[in-house]
Amino acid sequence: MSNYAAPIRDMQFVMRELAGLDEVAALPGNEEISPDLADAILDEADKFASGVLAPLNWTGDQEGATWHDGQVKTASGWKSAYDQFAEAGWTALAGDPEFGGQGLPKLIATAVMEMWKSANMAFSLCPMLTTGAIEALMLCGNAGQKAMYLPKMVSGEWTGTMNLTEPQAGSDLAAVRTRAEPQGDGTYRIFGQKIFITYGEHDLTDNIIHLVLARLPDAPEGVKGISLFVVPKFLVNADGSPGARNDVHCVSIEHKLGIHASPTCVLAFGDKGGAIGTLVGEPNRGLEYMFIMMNEARFAVGMEGLALSERAYQHALRYAKERIQGTEAGVRGGPKVSIIHHADVRRMLMSMKSRTEAMRALAYVVAGASDKAHGHPDATVRAHSQAFVDLMIPVVKGWCTESSVDVASVGVQVHGGMGFIEETGAAQHLRDARITPIYEGTTAIQANDLIGRKIARENGATIAAVVAEMRRVEAGLAAAEGEAFAAIRRSFGAGITAVEEAVAYILATYAKDIKAASVGSVPFLKLLGIVAGGWQMARAALIAQKKLAAGEGDARFLQAKIVTTRFYADHVLAEAPGLSYAVANGAAGALELAEEQF
Amino acid sequence: MSNYAAPIRDMQFVMRELAGLDEVAALPGNEEISPDLADAILDEADKFASGVLAPLNWTGDQEGATWHDGQVKTASGWKSAYDQFAEAGWTALAGDPEFGGQGLPKLIATAVMEMWKSANMAFSLCPMLTTGAIEALMLCGNAGQKAMYLPKMVSGEWTGTMNLTEPQAGSDLAAVRTRAEPQGDGTYRIFGQKIFITYGEHDLTDNIIHLVLARLPDAPEGVKGISLFVVPKFLVNADGSPGARNDVHCVSIEHKLGIHASPTCVLAFGDKGGAIGTLVGEPNRGLEYMFIMMNEARFAVGMEGLALSERAYQHALRYAKERIQGTEAGVRGGPKVSIIHHADVRRMLMSMKSRTEAMRALAYVVAGASDKAHGHPDATVRAHSQAFVDLMIPVVKGWCTESSVDVASVGVQVHGGMGFIEETGAAQHLRDARITPIYEGTTAIQANDLIGRKIARENGATIAAVVAEMRRVEAGLAAAEGEAFAAIRRSFGAGITAVEEAVAYILATYAKDIKAASVGSVPFLKLLGIVAGGWQMARAALIAQKKLAAGEGDARFLQAKIVTTRFYADHVLAEAPGLSYAVANGAAGALELAEEQF
Repeated sequence: MSNYAAPIRDMQFVMRELAGLDEVAALPGNEEISPDLADAILDEADKFASGVLAPLNWTGDQEGATWHDGQVKTASGWKSAYDQFAEAGWTALAGDPEFGGQGLPKLIATAVMEMWKSANMAFSLCPMLTTGAIEALMLCGNAGQKAMYLPKMVSGEWTGTMNLTEPQAGSDLAAVRTRAEPQGDGTYRIFGQKIFITYGEHDLTDNIIHLVLARLPDAPEGVKGISLFVVPKFLVNADGSPGARNDVHCVSIEHKLGIHASPTCVLAFGDKGGAIGTLVGEPNRGLEYMFIMMNEARFAVGMEGLALSERAYQHALRYAKERIQGTEAGVRGGPKVSIIHHADVRRMLMSMKSRTEAMRALAYVVAGASDKAHGHPDATVRAHSQAFVDLMIPVVKGWCTESSVDVASVGVQVHGGMGFIEETGAAQHLRDARITPIYEGTTAIQANDLIGRKIARENGATIAAVVAEMRRVEAGLAAAEGEAFAAIRRSFGAGITAVEEAVAYILATYAKDIKAASVGSVPFLKLLGIVAGGWQMARAALIAQKKLAAGEGDARFLQAKIVTTRFYADHVLAEAPGLSYAVANGAAGALELAEEQF
Repeated sequence: MSNYAAPIRDMQFVMRELAGLDEVAALPGNEEISPDLADAILDEADKFASGVLAPLNWTGDQEGATWHDGQVKTASGWKSAYDQFAEAGWTALAGDPEFGGQGLPKLIATAVMEMWKSANMAFSLCPMLTTGAIEALMLCGNAGQKAMYLPKMVSGEWTGTMNLTEPQAGSDLAAVRTRAEPQGDGTYRIFGQKIFITYGEHDLTDNIIHLVLARLPDAPEGVKGISLFVVPKFLVNADGSPGARNDVHCVSIEHKLGIHASPTCVLAFGDKGGAIGTLVGEPNRGLEYMFIMMNEARFAVGMEGLALSERAYQHALRYAKERIQGTEAGVRGGPKVSIIHHADVRRMLMSMKSRTEAMRALAYVVAGASDKAHGHPDATVRAHSQAFVDLMIPVVKGWCTESSVDVASVGVQVHGGMGFIEETGAAQHLRDARITPIYEGTTAIQANDLIGRKIARENGATIAAVVAEMRRVEAGLAAAEGEAFAAIRRSFGAGITAVEEAVAYILATYAKDIKAASVGSVPFLKLLGIVAGGWQMARAALIAQKKLAAGEGDARFLQAKIVTTRFYADHVLAEAPGLSYAVANGAAGALELAEEQF
């Protein structure tokens, strides 16, 4: 079984050198934040992630969550880990201090979140969903709801869920049928069935706070008739203690490809007269509220892609260093060597490593921008930062998760036949990763958001600014010495051009032929992810070179960053022109067949 | 759960128009073969595959094979299906008529094999391994061994296995330690442990015939000291009936990511005094014999890649036609539509469909060439055909299997959240596919074979001839009318150039820097697969156009073939230049890091 150790050196490098930790620390309200504090938090989180959560990852997968008669039993060790997690204050890390949170910047919380997800993705989903529910109540709840729920959710005493999906309403939330009947006393009775509810039922806490999309009796059809309700598992007494059992019950949990230890519940609301809930915010604005939180949730799922890639890489790397097989290429009869000596194993490891580092660089830069978007004193900076975050959220979500499936699959391949044996643990990462491009909006949903709301709607203003930034970095590469930088520049330059051409096609096509533009949406998302990741890697390589020239920092690490960037350029950025070609030329072949010709 | 129906129309088209069924039927010894006979066989096989094998695929996966006290119980329905399979004569399809086989051409057997693998890959492994063992005995066994084993193996009364791997000897068979002690009576006692033995123990037949790699006492070290032995589970009496239990026992079976119904056994030889076996062929030539059969086995695993892609495609297509979600793009408030109307779902389906058809075209063309290599009266044709087959076997194996992992993963994605639920069945195809790039030689092993033995060793003679053929097809595309053919030509032409450049790099580099060349070996294998598949698709599109102009054939099918080829060109062939770039430029970044810098 694999161990996990947080990649702290790379995390620190990315936070400080790429994502602007100093700038974030200088934001109003962050007076107590410093790089040293960030280091201390990372060290503590690593101890918890590697010491408590990581050892439960595989046992949790094998045992899974189990359902019996409406009750869900989490895997062995889960309850104790959760109690420790909450006690140590990890649930409150980024929470509002008004409700007991520590109010840490998103940049630091992001690095910590990566650790939870790498160590034990199935476990991490519980606090992740709770965080989403906390945000919903924070942003849209009334004072009574906040006082009733937030302190206990921030402290981890209670957990939260998000109830969106119904059997007929997956990507299409307009089809939600769950209904809410007003009782005349300010409460509502909720009736309906929700599926795919992560940690919708469990034995970790005394209460579970469900946020539920449902329709009021007089609601318009479609997306404009959906409201948001808060429905606790146990009604809350005036003194804040859990009271009567509410009419929401877990009727089954799913048998899934991965994240076995995370219970995915079917929840029945109102089988015994109606589940009591209260309206969050205004009627018929539920979907709008969901969209406000969506960025947060999508970013978090993108982080799962990064985190699983890191875990799969560590797993494969350890095996490649230990497994003895064959001799050095061209050395017949020589001594047997560990497989990391074989060229293709190195190629696979470098592919995993470079893509993981590129994901981390981009995701943390987005996290840093998010802090600026919320807290910068200058409104222009806030607006620019927010536009950048909005553009990149679907990329972080779509590209990191799609990449993680491939990285985890390569991780299996590094193990050879042992990779296919479940006890090895490499296959679990692939199984776990496979959900990430699906939930919280499939890659297609992200890609439509990207080309529609984030690019076409503003006629490409933000992406043009990003491309200009990329060109500035390319100029820096041109000025840098050495073969590696020439190679990085070649692929990165071609990658930027590929993005420009694809954007031009999307802007020219979106309004007049949305289907044609949409065929290219996912290839474009992957293209932008690859090139944006390359952009951050190129920045990292330039900074590394500067530090090396100045004799600063860990020379071996900095040299490796340049080599890793070069590998990424030669092998990953090299895919960019082909993707751009598919964006600009791929519609006719995709759309021409009649349905019966398939 | 998914049904399966053999894609007979495409199979027929590929066999007749691309793979030369007429030429194969005209070979000496094939006098009874005709397209009509081939059609009849395909129809019968489809009935068995769709009616008997396919319904057991998912139940077999869920139940799995089980081990108890040395015995392996196959999943429910397995024994009955196997009996019917053998009774119907399917095990004997391509077998030598001298031993009861039907001696059908490989081209026809290949189409039939595709059906078994699509319908139920875990089941199909049993006859596949038996076929490998039959070939080993046929090619290298003595008359007594052939008489003793072959008739019952060809008839399916007994099955066969291949025992190569040991814990320390995976890809590196030089490390095999199992030993064989001569008894002075022509028999040997075998001692050692073999792992990953497919159907090494089961309850389907009265006897199991193991072919085992082991070392004689005086054998040289390394690969030149390995001999091949035949070791039956039950010793065979003079009258051919099973006699005493031999000392080979299944000590456990593996808990795997996929192919759960195929027992993957640890076999202990000689725990109770030695397993009795006889030497096959000459001493110390075991690995050489294995390599003779390797082409066959590797081709068959490549077929698994094709077959799983087809199954995953059918599964996803059915769902996409049935699942109602959302409205047509740009039509808010319009009627809800099936998801095949959504641009990205179409892109995914076309990607699955076009890659599957390209794999089928290439694999069947190789099968047809194999028939010519064995049976053509002209020695030059035989030699050319064999050289082509030898070049393409690692491509069929490596490219089809790597592609199948991705195609099956896309199949999960088409299903959205339902794809992650095991009951849907889409995830099984991904789990099953994941072994195919690993066993029977990993993709890296295939790629090393490709650039070393198949290209560098002959200084690129065969690949040059293939490229010249591709250029001729490109000229045909240039002469064809219409936008689709212009698009196909653009990507295919760039793809050929990409192959040429990569081959030039390999030829220039292999001898002087094998590690640098090897970094590019897997990208090159994928490149050659993509372009060779495109070559066959381009041929198919040109033939389709000609037939359409002549008013021949099924117009809707032929039009679809052109559209599908265009999609393949725009989306898949477009990847070729990037892969070629990685081949020619990717070594430095991959090899530079010291081990501790990872």
